Amino acid sequence: MPNPTAAMLVIGDEILSGRTRDANMYYLAGELTKAGIDLKEVRVVSDDASAIVAAVRALSEGFDTVVTSGGIGPTHDDITADCIAEAFGDTIDIRDDARALLAAHYEKAGTELNAARLRMARIPSKATLIDNPVSVAPGFKMENVHVMAGVPSVFQAMVASMMPTLTGGQPLISQTLRIVRGEGDIAGPLGVLAQKYPDLSMGSYPFQKDGVYGANIVIRGTDEGAVATAIAELSEAFA
Amino acid sequence: MPNPTAAMLVIGDEILSGRTRDANMYYLAGELTKAGIDLKEVRVVSDDASAIVAAVRALSEGFDTVVTSGGIGPTHDDITADCIAEAFGDTIDIRDDARALLAAHYEKAGTELNAARLRMARIPSKATLIDNPVSVAPGFKMENVHVMAGVPSVFQAMVASMMPTLTGGQPLISQTLRIVRGEGDIAGPLGVLAQKYPDLSMGSYPFQKDGVYGANIVIRGTDEGAVATAIAELSEAFA
Repeated sequence: MPNPTAAMLVIGDEILSGRTRDANMYYLAGELTKAGIDLKEVRVVSDDASAIVAAVRALSEGFDTVVTSGGIGPTHDDITADCIAEAFGDTIDIRDDARALLAAHYEKAGTELNAARLRMARIPSKATLIDNPVSVAPGFKMENVHVMAGVPSVFQAMVASMMPTLTGGQPLISQTLRIVRGEGDIAGPLGVLAQKYPDLSMGSYPFQKDGVYGANIVIRGTDEGAVATAIAELSEAFA
Repeated sequence: MPNPTAAMLVIGDEILSGRTRDANMYYLAGELTKAGIDLKEVRVVSDDASAIVAAVRALSEGFDTVVTSGGIGPTHDDITADCIAEAFGDTIDIRDDARALLAAHYEKAGTELNAARLRMARIPSKATLIDNPVSVAPGFKMENVHVMAGVPSVFQAMVASMMPTLTGGQPLISQTLRIVRGEGDIAGPLGVLAQKYPDLSMGSYPFQKDGVYGANIVIRGTDEGAVATAIAELSEAFA
């Protein structure tokens, strides 16, 4: 049985303008791979309602699970929750369960739960809340879409809340062989090996550093023995 | 007149599996922003022909310029060139101009131009080559799609070859104000400011470090004076 699939939607002008280097994609990719869930596509869109709604619909239809990152804070540019409601034809307003979480948190901190902070309690009516142990304002799950904060520490905590709820697949085993040869010399034997082991995926990632050329060959698959055998054969071919 | 738009397509399992942290998106975003070209969307897809073809078509139709990264090397998993030909209904084969570049390079290096290396001369018939000063194997431009290598040093060299060929827009001026307050306290005044200056874009990027909470407020626009005035007003509101 093929592994479950996932897609990610990163929302935020700060990535597209080059101001911020994405960290959440890299983190989520690693967590999903460990759980045997295949991350198949990532999209990054700006803080633009029609772009967000279109991407949510396309990814929700195309993959088993979708994770979004960004746009659920208290400021005017945080429009993700409203876009999710629109994408699924749901209504959205301040919800009592989310408001209670925020009220308890800000009362303890002696901070006013003002109108801006209350925006973080705007959740689509049919969504389920996702726990945020870092800064309390919850994420939420709507159909197969998990909506999470963009701040990396909060994103990671929400991913930790989500992972046990997902159905995993067979974890992918991966082994890497570093070959100090031009990729053009590696390609022939590697292609033969890829045909011999159609259930394994083989990738070649060339490097050039301090005048040394070569490639890291990564062989991935769910059968640990097959991965080890293929790596051994490749290693022998370049001994 | 609005700025020209761009999209990026990153091709490669290594990003989606969490093995490699993307560097090209961050680099390209910065270069395009400097040139006044708005990067509107990025997609990351795996080494899968139908996913690549569909993404190329969608992005090519939706944006002025598209840049792809990855999948043009000599190994069996490098399928980008064939996918571009398919996306635009063009034929593809080893082209004499690209072969000549490779032949001269490998002859000088005393390296055999074998079948695998010749794959890098497979270019769609209607494409224009993009210069690769690092490792010679060319990228290419097909309609509005610029096809580039995934190795960051090569990608960056190809971007340098491409940038002078693009029509730029008004460069975006951006100023940042660091405010050590909860984002919920910043949101109100920031929202008022955003309504007062509809031509400026204002983003709030919260941080929490060593127990200090705050947000970097970034104000962007093409009118340097307006950006400076808005930053000054925001600064005064939190003095």
